[in-house]
Amino acid sequence: MLALHVCLSPALIPLYKVEEYIVVVIDIFRATSSICYGIENGAEAIIPVAEVAECAAYREKGAEFLLAAERDGSVVEWFDFGNSPFSYTTEKVAGKTVVLTTTNGTHALHLSRSAKKVVIGSFLNLTSLCDWLGKQHDNILLVCAGWKNNFNLEDTVFAGAVVNRLRLLNKYVLDDAATAALDIYNMARNDLAGYLGKTAHSERLKKLGIEKDIAFCLNVDLTTSIPVLIGDRLVKL
Amino acid sequence: MLALHVCLSPALIPLYKVEEYIVVVIDIFRATSSICYGIENGAEAIIPVAEVAECAAYREKGAEFLLAAERDGSVVEWFDFGNSPFSYTTEKVAGKTVVLTTTNGTHALHLSRSAKKVVIGSFLNLTSLCDWLGKQHDNILLVCAGWKNNFNLEDTVFAGAVVNRLRLLNKYVLDDAATAALDIYNMARNDLAGYLGKTAHSERLKKLGIEKDIAFCLNVDLTTSIPVLIGDRLVKL
Repeated sequence: MLALHVCLSPALIPLYKVEEYIVVVIDIFRATSSICYGIENGAEAIIPVAEVAECAAYREKGAEFLLAAERDGSVVEWFDFGNSPFSYTTEKVAGKTVVLTTTNGTHALHLSRSAKKVVIGSFLNLTSLCDWLGKQHDNILLVCAGWKNNFNLEDTVFAGAVVNRLRLLNKYVLDDAATAALDIYNMARNDLAGYLGKTAHSERLKKLGIEKDIAFCLNVDLTTSIPVLIGDRLVKL
Repeated sequence: MLALHVCLSPALIPLYKVEEYIVVVIDIFRATSSICYGIENGAEAIIPVAEVAECAAYREKGAEFLLAAERDGSVVEWFDFGNSPFSYTTEKVAGKTVVLTTTNGTHALHLSRSAKKVVIGSFLNLTSLCDWLGKQHDNILLVCAGWKNNFNLEDTVFAGAVVNRLRLLNKYVLDDAATAALDIYNMARNDLAGYLGKTAHSERLKKLGIEKDIAFCLNVDLTTSIPVLIGDRLVKL
C-alpha cells in the first residue's frame, strides 16, 4: 500500500520526508487556481519566487517576463498583476513567462521542492490531476498552503476532494489529516460556495471586492493541464 | 465578540499570541484524560515535565512523588506508571503528587504556559469545562496535542465538541480550524468510538493492547474537576 497523506499547513512540512512523496501544492484562493489557468492558457512557464524583491529583479531581464506579486490579497504596487485568475487569460499570458510571488502558495512550493515531483492542484484541474496521480506508483502528499502558515478550510476541502477520488483505487493508506479532509469535503461537496463562504479567507477576499475570483476558483474541471515544477519553473506536464 | 480558536498541532502554537487566550490543552488518548481522572480522584497535584530525565530526578525528592513516564504509547521502564487512566484511581493517587512526562501532552502544555490560564480538557470533564469556559470573558484557544507535532483526529473531535457547546452562547468568532473541528465532531458524535476507531493513533494503541484505555477516555462527563496549571503544577481549579 502507498501513503496518501495531507499536510494541513506549510509549518508542518518539516514533519514529512518530502523526498519520499509526489507533492501536490494547493492554494485554492487563488494562487494554484491561477497557475492552473495560466498554464492551460499557454503561459510558457510560471516561476514561483519567495520574495517580492526577487520578483522585481526580473524586470531587467526583458519584456517576456510578466511580474505578478500578491500580498495579503492585493496586487503589490508597481507589478503587472497579482494572483487573480482573470489576469491569467490567453490574451495576457500565452507565450509569456510569469514570475509570481504570493502570500502563501509560493512559500509552500519552496518548502516542497525536494519532493520526487511537485505538481499543482486546484478545482480547475481536479479530474486530470487525480487521473494522473492514480497512475503513479508513489506516495502522495497533499500540501495545503493555508493562510500565513496556519490551517484553512478551502485548501483542506480540495485535499479532501482528491482523497475522495484516489481512495476508490484501494491502494492508499490515509493518515488522520487525510481522513479529516475527506470528511470535511463530504460535508462541503454539495454546496462548495456556500460552505466556503464561512471561511475566514473568503471574508477577507470579500472585503477586497474579489468575490468573482472566489466563484471562478470553484469551477471544477475547467482545465486539463497539470503544472509541474521543473527546476525553478512550473511548466505543463 | 471573543475569539474561539483551535490550534491543530503544537507546531502551530507559535502562530498564536497565547498570552491573549485561556488555553485548553487536549490529549485525549490518553494524557489529558488521565490528568482529569487523577485530579478528580484526589491527586494533590500533577507536575508535567518535558523530559524523562526531569521526571526521574524526582525519585530522590521523596515517596510522595509518583513518577509517570510514557513514550510512544508505553510505560518507560523503571517508572511507576505511564498515562493509562487506570493508573490514576483514588487508591493509587489520592494525596499524592504525580510527576508526568508524555509523548505529546506535556509538550503542548509547556508551549502554552504563557497563556492567561491553562486548563485541561477531555471527554471526562466536557460539561464542567464548557460551563466554566463559557463564564469567562476571555478568548479561548483549544490546543490539540496531536501526535509528534502533527494533526490527529481524536483531539480535533474533542475540540469540536467544545466548540459545539460554546457557540450556543453567541459570543465567539470561530477561526477556520474551529469550524473544521466542529464539522468533524458533528460527523463523529453519534458513534465516537466507531469514528475514532479509524484513527492512526487508535491503531497504534490497539497494537499495544490498550483498547480498554481508549474506551475509557471516551466516557463523557465521568468527572467534574478542571485541572489548572498554577506555576509548574496542575491542581484542581
